[in-house]
Amino acid sequence: MAAMSIIECVPNISEGRDPGVVARIASALRDIAGVRLLDVQSDAAHHRSVLTLAGEAGPLKLAVLELFEQAMAAIDLREHKGEHPRMGAVDVVPFVPIEGVTMEACVALAKDVAQEVAKRFGVPVYLYEEAASAPSRRNLEDVRRGEFEGLAAKMQQSGWQPDFGPHKPHATAGATAIGARMPLIAYNINLATNRLDVAKKIAAGLRMSSGGYRFVKAMGLALEDRGIVQVSMNLTNYEKTPIFRVFETVKREAARYGVNVLESEIVGLVPSAALMQAAEFYLQLEGFSAKQVLENKLRGAE
Amino acid sequence: MAAMSIIECVPNISEGRDPGVVARIASALRDIAGVRLLDVQSDAAHHRSVLTLAGEAGPLKLAVLELFEQAMAAIDLREHKGEHPRMGAVDVVPFVPIEGVTMEACVALAKDVAQEVAKRFGVPVYLYEEAASAPSRRNLEDVRRGEFEGLAAKMQQSGWQPDFGPHKPHATAGATAIGARMPLIAYNINLATNRLDVAKKIAAGLRMSSGGYRFVKAMGLALEDRGIVQVSMNLTNYEKTPIFRVFETVKREAARYGVNVLESEIVGLVPSAALMQAAEFYLQLEGFSAKQVLENKLRGAE
Repeated sequence: MAAMSIIECVPNISEGRDPGVVARIASALRDIAGVRLLDVQSDAAHHRSVLTLAGEAGPLKLAVLELFEQAMAAIDLREHKGEHPRMGAVDVVPFVPIEGVTMEACVALAKDVAQEVAKRFGVPVYLYEEAASAPSRRNLEDVRRGEFEGLAAKMQQSGWQPDFGPHKPHATAGATAIGARMPLIAYNINLATNRLDVAKKIAAGLRMSSGGYRFVKAMGLALEDRGIVQVSMNLTNYEKTPIFRVFETVKREAARYGVNVLESEIVGLVPSAALMQAAEFYLQLEGFSAKQVLENKLRGAE
Repeated sequence: MAAMSIIECVPNISEGRDPGVVARIASALRDIAGVRLLDVQSDAAHHRSVLTLAGEAGPLKLAVLELFEQAMAAIDLREHKGEHPRMGAVDVVPFVPIEGVTMEACVALAKDVAQEVAKRFGVPVYLYEEAASAPSRRNLEDVRRGEFEGLAAKMQQSGWQPDFGPHKPHATAGATAIGARMPLIAYNINLATNRLDVAKKIAAGLRMSSGGYRFVKAMGLALEDRGIVQVSMNLTNYEKTPIFRVFETVKREAARYGVNVLESEIVGLVPSAALMQAAEFYLQLEGFSAKQVLENKLRGAE
């Protein structure tokens, strides 16, 4: 039995206030065979919705094209104001390898979809993260800086021509960033103290931007109602910067201040492999393989 | 999307020397829709083969009935001699809950299959482990004591009437134990020492039979070629006696003798939940749920 590959796709669209529009788009995506719509989250303040899809490459491509069709008919960015930065009606489309599929395959899918979106809808597309055509385009924040209103000028600057499509924004739909990335893990560690300075110092030591681990974004914050503090993190590549290493580092750094780790928490979803890594590390498992996980064997994966 | 339930079934048959017979049986099982034959292991010295099947209750029942049909046609216990204790042509049939299914459902399946086997094939059946009709029948070793040759006399003893079928063994197929149990985990911890007495003392402290954990079978042995010793275990219920607790106990007891844990190893398959438990424990994860595992969400399971 051939292993099924699973890719996750998490498009963000610039509509978070009209439930009817979001419901119509969701319904159109549900009709596509081979794609599962796992989640829809709308945020009115951000005026933005996040859709979570899963499937194989072919059906996901059809779903993203359908999404552009629907979103472009319903959204006019000239009238869009929200708290979240955005440059497109379909603002960003990341593909994420989950199982039985490589990052390279997700990069290829991102490029294929980007080309087709530009051709069919006349929307300029930037490739980002693992699919980026230059290091300066890896970070979504850099690609999107200036937002919809600044796009026309940005596209004339050297180095900011889009990867596909016209060199000017679409009148109502702006431009889109399409790319491939590892799954994000939202991971928090709570400290048994109310000392915010300790959480902030630990966060600074952990995050890449101030010298910490390559795939960690971190900040220290207070949980006022509980009288404790938290190191709040995004782990952007759990294979290369694993959860257990981050946890052990926080525990050690906290001890330096006489502070204990109270607990940690994973917000939202986590790939099973990220937890397997931790089990393997702490149990000092030698020669362990994902093939030994009963569920993987039962499903014919690996 | 309804979650699929997965039950594992691991019948042991008393034929391990004629590859043609085992292949015919395997082939008949592969033909049953809704059942996957994951593994077949034959042992000539034991004169025994272990088959690993997976599927939902209905198809597994059909598979076990087909297995009796085939095995009874090919095996005559009167001519069977091997190193492994046995009392039946189909010696033992455990059902194991893996995913989306309770132990109670596996017990019900064991009873249903046992009744049908007795009726259709005239083979007496003992229920064992979680399906046992009395505590004295829980352990397979107790049920099987006396083996095929002692069955006729045993069935006349008070307390050893079979649960289903005639009160005398089948002339060529003996009797069968059918039951339900948790998945077994074969788990070894290697110590950085050649002191066999240390491994034996730790094993004695761990195993239920000498006062240790309820669901641990353990022994100490030497790995001569590596010059180290091993605490070799079967964990018979990882939910109630989890891997991490066993590992931490061995680490602590070894330290008492000035010995370090070198590594641990899982032999064969392990349910993903057993490793998730370890990650949850060591990372001090609060409020974590299996629903947060991406793969579970993708498959529509809990």
